[in-house]
Amino acid sequence: MPRRRQLPLDMLALDRGSATPLYRQLYESLRSQILDGRLAARMRLPATRELANDLGVSRNTVIGAYDALQAEGYLESAAGSGTRVAALPEYVGRTKVGRHASRLPGLSKRGRLMTSLWRDRTIPDRIAFHPGYPEIQAFPFTTWARLVAANMRNIREDLFGYHLVAGHPRLRLAIAEYLGVSRGVNCEPDQIIVVTGAQAALDLIGRLFMDPGDCFWIEDPGYAGAYNAFVSAGGRPAPLPVGPGGWGIEKANPSPRLIFVTPSCQWPLGLVMPMEVRLRLLQIAEKHDAWIVEDDYDSEYRFRGHPIPAMQGLDDSGRVIYVGTLSKTMFPSVRVAYIVVPPTLVEGFKTAVSVSGQYPPLLLQAAVADFISQGFFAIHLRRMRRLYARRQREFVAMCNTRLDRWLSVREIDTGMQLMGRFKRPMDDGDVLVAAMKRGVDFSRMSPHYRFAEPEQGMFLGYAGVDQDTTRRGVERLRLAFQDLERGSRQG
Amino acid sequence: MPRRRQLPLDMLALDRGSATPLYRQLYESLRSQILDGRLAARMRLPATRELANDLGVSRNTVIGAYDALQAEGYLESAAGSGTRVAALPEYVGRTKVGRHASRLPGLSKRGRLMTSLWRDRTIPDRIAFHPGYPEIQAFPFTTWARLVAANMRNIREDLFGYHLVAGHPRLRLAIAEYLGVSRGVNCEPDQIIVVTGAQAALDLIGRLFMDPGDCFWIEDPGYAGAYNAFVSAGGRPAPLPVGPGGWGIEKANPSPRLIFVTPSCQWPLGLVMPMEVRLRLLQIAEKHDAWIVEDDYDSEYRFRGHPIPAMQGLDDSGRVIYVGTLSKTMFPSVRVAYIVVPPTLVEGFKTAVSVSGQYPPLLLQAAVADFISQGFFAIHLRRMRRLYARRQREFVAMCNTRLDRWLSVREIDTGMQLMGRFKRPMDDGDVLVAAMKRGVDFSRMSPHYRFAEPEQGMFLGYAGVDQDTTRRGVERLRLAFQDLERGSRQG
Repeated sequence: MPRRRQLPLDMLALDRGSATPLYRQLYESLRSQILDGRLAARMRLPATRELANDLGVSRNTVIGAYDALQAEGYLESAAGSGTRVAALPEYVGRTKVGRHASRLPGLSKRGRLMTSLWRDRTIPDRIAFHPGYPEIQAFPFTTWARLVAANMRNIREDLFGYHLVAGHPRLRLAIAEYLGVSRGVNCEPDQIIVVTGAQAALDLIGRLFMDPGDCFWIEDPGYAGAYNAFVSAGGRPAPLPVGPGGWGIEKANPSPRLIFVTPSCQWPLGLVMPMEVRLRLLQIAEKHDAWIVEDDYDSEYRFRGHPIPAMQGLDDSGRVIYVGTLSKTMFPSVRVAYIVVPPTLVEGFKTAVSVSGQYPPLLLQAAVADFISQGFFAIHLRRMRRLYARRQREFVAMCNTRLDRWLSVREIDTGMQLMGRFKRPMDDGDVLVAAMKRGVDFSRMSPHYRFAEPEQGMFLGYAGVDQDTTRRGVERLRLAFQDLERGSRQG
Repeated sequence: MPRRRQLPLDMLALDRGSATPLYRQLYESLRSQILDGRLAARMRLPATRELANDLGVSRNTVIGAYDALQAEGYLESAAGSGTRVAALPEYVGRTKVGRHASRLPGLSKRGRLMTSLWRDRTIPDRIAFHPGYPEIQAFPFTTWARLVAANMRNIREDLFGYHLVAGHPRLRLAIAEYLGVSRGVNCEPDQIIVVTGAQAALDLIGRLFMDPGDCFWIEDPGYAGAYNAFVSAGGRPAPLPVGPGGWGIEKANPSPRLIFVTPSCQWPLGLVMPMEVRLRLLQIAEKHDAWIVEDDYDSEYRFRGHPIPAMQGLDDSGRVIYVGTLSKTMFPSVRVAYIVVPPTLVEGFKTAVSVSGQYPPLLLQAAVADFISQGFFAIHLRRMRRLYARRQREFVAMCNTRLDRWLSVREIDTGMQLMGRFKRPMDDGDVLVAAMKRGVDFSRMSPHYRFAEPEQGMFLGYAGVDQDTTRRGVERLRLAFQDLERGSRQG
């Protein structure tokens, strides 16, 4: 067993007066010490509880810092041996981390905000059970590679300029047709603005519709990506409370400039917004002269009944801005999403996107257009719908058999992830640490709350995980829960 | 018990020949009648078996339609009382005839600015003589298609998540090596942030380094893309005057937060910034605690002498943010560019780019990495350097032979475009109109000035135009000038 060296606590001075969150300060401090070699490879770090005590901070602060460092590969943890500094490649240690950082100008206020927002970090090769991952082994990559290669060889001057900033015409047509038939979205191809992912869509929308100080409503619990984009645009968030009973519209105030909702499959609760609430939201938006942003991120995966048409199709005023993505229906790294905007805003969005540079490569767009219009997309969707329905049933059954003592998981009708509720009081941060030690991942429920008292729980992605991995993952979760029980009996 | 009203069956006409499934037709028909009030709230619908008989369809068809309507809240059903039309709020009942643009909420102030900025519009299939176009016929698309297809088939889970927001590790390594060797840029792969084009880089930089009201210096005449990004971030522009004699640093004020320069090949004048000016700019930046943004957009094309190393390599403070792009060295629609940031800002940029969504598809990045690291990039660059040197000589010779009466064009050492100065007073807007009538394009000089009295002239791209097209284009310009002369004699 390696000699246990002491973590030099005096080098971890935290500034409680700083705007930078404590976990971030701790993260940065540890990271720079790893990078410059002061914390040696393989060195063991104190347990989170211990370090939290030593530093006089909450345990979640330490967990947050460790999680981030682990997600990025600075730390590694293994069952039984705690958390250690990872052995990093050669060039680290020569980095210029210390290169007169103190002489650098500062970031802008907005920059300090944007660079310190919470992000849900995914970990390479550990998709059990992180939400937001589609199945990729089943994606028709051979067909896809053929379509891409054909388009990459197809040298046409009109694809090489800078004029098609709103998207490839064939792709805009294919998306408009798909949205009309499958999602009840009412639009012409010209209203489609193709962007580099749903996050880019939200970022652009936040900037074009809100000035600093403008209020936006966001579901609570709700989608961090939208929250981050809109506060980066200077928006002032106000909660639109969501609970097991649905959307608490009457509790939302003050007057919003923009309302962000996920009506087809609420993120993270998985609820479907009832028609009555949709119509009342439209009334409210009209009363306050507000925009509605409808994020329809994975409505394609509906397992019982029929997909529910988008709010955009109900709206006769043009104030519903519809956002859709191919990250879940194709794969995340394709980086193609789209915004449906009212006809009068099309030219403005083109100019704005040419300023922000948020448009994806045209040759890739052409391949995506072929993938949709030649029917491969519909076939893949149908297959995935069946696959995910089966995976969800199996996953829920396994959870109910093996994790029943700690966790309640129920089938839902839509989406690629579901919520696990604890049967006894537990901190989802503790559960995550225990799960990570056992080599399995999930997203904590509590960070999705920004206003209400957070509900502790697990947000579990099952769609991208095959049966064997699911079984192993559930067993690992079982071990993690058992570890926690043992720990708390001893503690 | 409420009076039973009759469902008007004649309004439920189903088209058996249509591609739309029958249940979907029934669903849509019922839905639209509920929405426009023809089926009143609380009205009871026939039992599924009964309606199926009446319509002559299978009972599953009716069940499918009822289920969907119920899931969406249009219908409600209660044990013992059958299926009824739900009582929906007021909003329903309006017809969607004509979407009234006047009823839309407005854009934000920033949105009105961003959507109304000047953009240099390129025209499909008319690249003679628009600046910014590389040669694309000579691009090795077969090799490229092969590399892309290989990567698109190469299913690896670690490429499908959301964790590699700063770029594909292979690409970051390839770019860092290239920049070190070819551009004298001093960086580790970890400092490379890959983004969707130079415009995205400038947009991100503007937001992270400037708050509304902060002053930035921009070359005058200078690059509109940078100007647009920085004023969209709320920056207040101040001129850094550039003339035939170079950069008028001493004339720039007030105190800047950010200084934007194109030292390797000034856009649009084509000048190279002397070392002395570079060092003085670094001093000035230090004095004002300002960032320098170095846009190195086409320094690769240097035809005489050696490429001049980037300012970034001169700087020991980390305040020079280097921006490079593959739009000119590969092709514009590849949408891959990169920012070199100080090590301490890497994590912050990762978070910021995950908020703004400005990162390109990983599979495409992998192909670009292969293209560079397998040597194709260097070979292509060498070939293009020779080709553009020859094209520039020929283009200048043709202009001097055929347009000598109106235009003065001189060879320059760097870049893919050059400036034409009028020999007699002319308005470049008039010349552009005349040229477009003759089917040839260029970019006007005067819009590149934002502060000083604009110089009228032509900004001409020659690199992407083959010899024949160049000859025809120059003849067309000659005709355009003659048209103008005739017009002014008649006028």
